[in-house]
Amino acid sequence: MIEHSVRLTADAVLILDRRKLPLEREWVRCETVADVAQAIKDMVTQSSGPYFAALYGMVLAARAGEDLEAAGQVLVNTRRTNNHLRKAVHCVLSTSDRSVAGVLAAAEAGDELYRARSRALAEAAASLLPDGARVLTHCWADIYLIELVVSLRKTGKDFSFTCTETRPYLQGARLTAPTLAEMGVDTTLVTDGMGAALIADGRVDALVTAADRVTMDGHVINKVGTLGLAAAAHAFDVPFHALVQAPDQDAPSAESVPIEYRSGEDVLSYKVSGVRGVYPAFDITPPRLVTTVVTDRGAFAPADVHSYYEEGEQNQ
Amino acid sequence: MIEHSVRLTADAVLILDRRKLPLEREWVRCETVADVAQAIKDMVTQSSGPYFAALYGMVLAARAGEDLEAAGQVLVNTRRTNNHLRKAVHCVLSTSDRSVAGVLAAAEAGDELYRARSRALAEAAASLLPDGARVLTHCWADIYLIELVVSLRKTGKDFSFTCTETRPYLQGARLTAPTLAEMGVDTTLVTDGMGAALIADGRVDALVTAADRVTMDGHVINKVGTLGLAAAAHAFDVPFHALVQAPDQDAPSAESVPIEYRSGEDVLSYKVSGVRGVYPAFDITPPRLVTTVVTDRGAFAPADVHSYYEEGEQNQ
Repeated sequence: MIEHSVRLTADAVLILDRRKLPLEREWVRCETVADVAQAIKDMVTQSSGPYFAALYGMVLAARAGEDLEAAGQVLVNTRRTNNHLRKAVHCVLSTSDRSVAGVLAAAEAGDELYRARSRALAEAAASLLPDGARVLTHCWADIYLIELVVSLRKTGKDFSFTCTETRPYLQGARLTAPTLAEMGVDTTLVTDGMGAALIADGRVDALVTAADRVTMDGHVINKVGTLGLAAAAHAFDVPFHALVQAPDQDAPSAESVPIEYRSGEDVLSYKVSGVRGVYPAFDITPPRLVTTVVTDRGAFAPADVHSYYEEGEQNQ
Repeated sequence: MIEHSVRLTADAVLILDRRKLPLEREWVRCETVADVAQAIKDMVTQSSGPYFAALYGMVLAARAGEDLEAAGQVLVNTRRTNNHLRKAVHCVLSTSDRSVAGVLAAAEAGDELYRARSRALAEAAASLLPDGARVLTHCWADIYLIELVVSLRKTGKDFSFTCTETRPYLQGARLTAPTLAEMGVDTTLVTDGMGAALIADGRVDALVTAADRVTMDGHVINKVGTLGLAAAAHAFDVPFHALVQAPDQDAPSAESVPIEYRSGEDVLSYKVSGVRGVYPAFDITPPRLVTTVVTDRGAFAPADVHSYYEEGEQNQ
């Protein structure tokens, strides 16, 4: 997973099929920009992957002599929530030299810039984390995650990660956990519902996720499940650091970000995966997060459950 | 799932194997109290199931002429977090008639009392829910859930349920969702990370779960994952109603409740299941729940992300 997952060859773009990792290592071969668009739509690659796929998809369009504006629109229309596609297409279209060589140079410059900015944000994130940091992360932060590990090591800080499995596609179990393990990081896997219990139990020093977008008033848009972890982190005074290259000037607030709904059928199926797990079978919700305790003697505010016994003991 | 899942026969206790539902309907046959204890330990049945299994396990012990105190201790020791086992054993041991007939009568009285109290709390819960209530629930509330549906229907209120799948055992997908569907309730299934997104999106009127225990100062102990949903509900002013027959006088606060950790290996495997799903691919975390936005120009408070552009536009 550490290797580049999108490659431009003489006649195609090869995209590592992240749906099959870590069990299989297959590359989807895209010969046209339409193939690239379809691969993005089919979730062959996620997170930073679509950015690189779009950059080199534009090179395929240039090679085929296609209209670049139209090709760019096809790519941008594949998935709506993520900002990477728009950025990649814009990067190529903003070059004045529309020759194949010019488009290739623009794509390669976009590639290098993306990596440099990822390194920069990772260094900033590493400086926020304490020595011995136990980091909880959700889904797959891709290059941001890899660069964060590299940056943390440069600082000499010790650290460990817990990943949520990130149902239904299991990017956490299939991509994040194996990548961290491959890098030699102490890695634990939990189900998506367990993060709050670890946070409340004092076993998380920081929640760190990538953001697909950040609006200008600070809303963080990321893989579903981030919100619940953020609410739990907030409730227990654990910091949540969201990683993004830049906030989105086109999104003043959350209303301007369309949320993608994928097929509900996807919730109903599953794939298996690997690495270590930890499994607290229950968690503890403190009274300040409970509205009512309903008993066979009626409803009580959590602070008033002792009143239950005012009418005497129960029979058992 | 609506039928009784624990049955006493002439020479055994039969326990419906909830690990295999809804695909298979198998009964685990327990001929001794030790068999019953093993079945509880192996998670053949959960939620209210262990209560009934323990009641009738004590009858098996009485029939075999075993020491009832010792038999009770074996049952209580199987799982530590839940209070039902202690209650069931106590119910039988508090009868003065220790004959087989006396123990059977005590077990049957405990059975009936449990059902009556479940009906009472369900009626109280139903009265808290508005007409048209969209209820989010987690894991498997068993008789409480079934009685809640019955009570809601008696009130004439309209309602629908969304269930979290409840990884890793999938009680939500395998037990709750099929049971509600079997009862003709409008039922949606989501993964465990999606509840917060639905809450924030204004699509949940109340979070309602059972509680394995409620401490005297109002801590709710329930299946892992409840806490994250409660934190999200609290953050978005959605009420969380926890269902329990009575708070636990033996537990003044959370410190007195040992939390069971099951094998981490269980996080790493899975079973498939049915019914309708809904899948928001992302969620939106508001700025008040975010500590930091980390960019390639450093870290910002969410309210300050606009400062990112004070040093000019980015190149792309």
